[in-house]
Amino acid sequence: MPVGTQGTVKTVGSEDLEALGFEQVLSNTYHLSLRPGSKLIENIGGLHHFMSWNRSILTDSGGYQVMSLSNTRTIDDSGVKFKSHLDGSFQFLSPERSIEIQGELGVDISMSLDECPAFPCTRDEAANAMRRTHLWAPRNLQSAKVGQAVFGIVQGGVHEDLRTESAGFISSLPFDGIAIGGVSVGEPTEMQYPVVAHTAPLLPPDKPRYLMGVGHPKDILHAVSHGIDMFDCVLPTRMARHHTIYTLNGRVNALGKKWSEFDGPFDEQSVFPHTERYSAAYIRHLFKAGEPLGGRLATLHNLAFYARLMREIRDAIETGSWPDLVARYAIA
Amino acid sequence: MPVGTQGTVKTVGSEDLEALGFEQVLSNTYHLSLRPGSKLIENIGGLHHFMSWNRSILTDSGGYQVMSLSNTRTIDDSGVKFKSHLDGSFQFLSPERSIEIQGELGVDISMSLDECPAFPCTRDEAANAMRRTHLWAPRNLQSAKVGQAVFGIVQGGVHEDLRTESAGFISSLPFDGIAIGGVSVGEPTEMQYPVVAHTAPLLPPDKPRYLMGVGHPKDILHAVSHGIDMFDCVLPTRMARHHTIYTLNGRVNALGKKWSEFDGPFDEQSVFPHTERYSAAYIRHLFKAGEPLGGRLATLHNLAFYARLMREIRDAIETGSWPDLVARYAIA
Repeated sequence: MPVGTQGTVKTVGSEDLEALGFEQVLSNTYHLSLRPGSKLIENIGGLHHFMSWNRSILTDSGGYQVMSLSNTRTIDDSGVKFKSHLDGSFQFLSPERSIEIQGELGVDISMSLDECPAFPCTRDEAANAMRRTHLWAPRNLQSAKVGQAVFGIVQGGVHEDLRTESAGFISSLPFDGIAIGGVSVGEPTEMQYPVVAHTAPLLPPDKPRYLMGVGHPKDILHAVSHGIDMFDCVLPTRMARHHTIYTLNGRVNALGKKWSEFDGPFDEQSVFPHTERYSAAYIRHLFKAGEPLGGRLATLHNLAFYARLMREIRDAIETGSWPDLVARYAIA
Repeated sequence: MPVGTQGTVKTVGSEDLEALGFEQVLSNTYHLSLRPGSKLIENIGGLHHFMSWNRSILTDSGGYQVMSLSNTRTIDDSGVKFKSHLDGSFQFLSPERSIEIQGELGVDISMSLDECPAFPCTRDEAANAMRRTHLWAPRNLQSAKVGQAVFGIVQGGVHEDLRTESAGFISSLPFDGIAIGGVSVGEPTEMQYPVVAHTAPLLPPDKPRYLMGVGHPKDILHAVSHGIDMFDCVLPTRMARHHTIYTLNGRVNALGKKWSEFDGPFDEQSVFPHTERYSAAYIRHLFKAGEPLGGRLATLHNLAFYARLMREIRDAIETGSWPDLVARYAIA
């Protein structure tokens, strides 16, 4: 899923995402509820209509943004009271309210409000966040409208026993899908991989498994090899705006002098319809000149790169050519 | 002509400009010669290839930017010595060098280097700028490569006798087209219109007549009624980035509260393919949230509005329905 935090994937329109072949985007409950407001979006016909996107939308619960964006917040078992980062107004988010907002947005998949501890945290902090996540889990489910899918979220930090306990509890509830939360929160890869490898196989085989906030192509391949189905990540779009281009030869800096007169693509093996008419030299020039088209073309390229990765993952699973695929993206 | 100062019309790609139906864009000698450099663009195959635009390109001479962007400059009959606004390096622009740069860019229409006096200026300043423009005019022509079209530029400020003298002199030289310069430099409309009305009819009927830097739809209609054929203006694109939308009911501020829940277009009579799927409420939200897609959608709308204006101008000339057209755009 490309990330469209505020009801838009930065620099591209829905027509671009359709042409790139994406089937689902992620948007954000915290941001949309503060601006323009979930009631406004409901009144206007829902988020699909608002952003002119008739494919699937998943929203995260807003819990992560409450932690990362609001500097004044108090959390207890009832929910989180916080100050809006926009106007300083006091706001309250609970499992019930988060699911209600996502219902007003009218999205296809709602994520449960959980407590995602910061990294690093103590074992006690991880255990307490898990305890509250479990307390809230059924309240999320009970707040859903008829037809509103809700995913549960497994917490437990980097502790295998907590992850086992959390996977067991969340899987026991009638969620429509299960996510692994609390990864990609700043921890190094060598701490992320064991959590995924340990937790993913504990999830029910008949429900979608979603690894939140991951990641680099190799992280996605690792996670898929352990059974993960769904991903969202800001990397392709955020990296693009910071002039970083994904290629099969690794990420490249579009500002590099080597591209200044290079009348070809950054990667001969990664040429996509949206951007193939533009050379590396031109895209470098756009970035050097501060032109907005630079970020757009890089975004289109990186999204096309990720869309192809996901297509090739599906193909490789069907055809059994997994090792070739892993080798192909080894340094991407 | 949409304005693509640095080899790109801000926020849109060549595929967008093609879809909008534009046949020519304007780019800029001053900017491109400083960054990425005209030799680099020549080496890579010319500006058409560089920006992937195989329709027509006109470049302005760079003279206007030398005056407006460089705070250190000395001008004499040999040319202009100035400091780059990018790195402070000393640069020199003469008629010969300007036309040479435009030849390196490989554009379809080169503009002569002229001296465009600031507004306001004294009659002596206007006369001196005209004198130097005339001195330079043949040197521009003589510097062109075979097949490189060059337009001359009429100066003379707001003084009818100077404009008459300049139109006569410039028209006597074998330019491929004639431009009226020194308008749209900050003067009020009531000073601009008489200059256009006086000067345009003095130009040769068998060559394209180009009014540089104009303007609002009503300014364009006024100028066409006096015989002008070609225009460039940053208004549709610059206004768009400042959330101003052209409509047949006048320009509107997309941030206006009235649009916050408005699930329709800003103007029912101005709905264009590129942007018709997005409501005024959504575009307002994008601007309020600081999202780059806002500027892009507004740019696409405004460019489509201007493209239609120019199509309707051609149609009205052919069908004789000019008064209806003027009424239609009276408050746009």
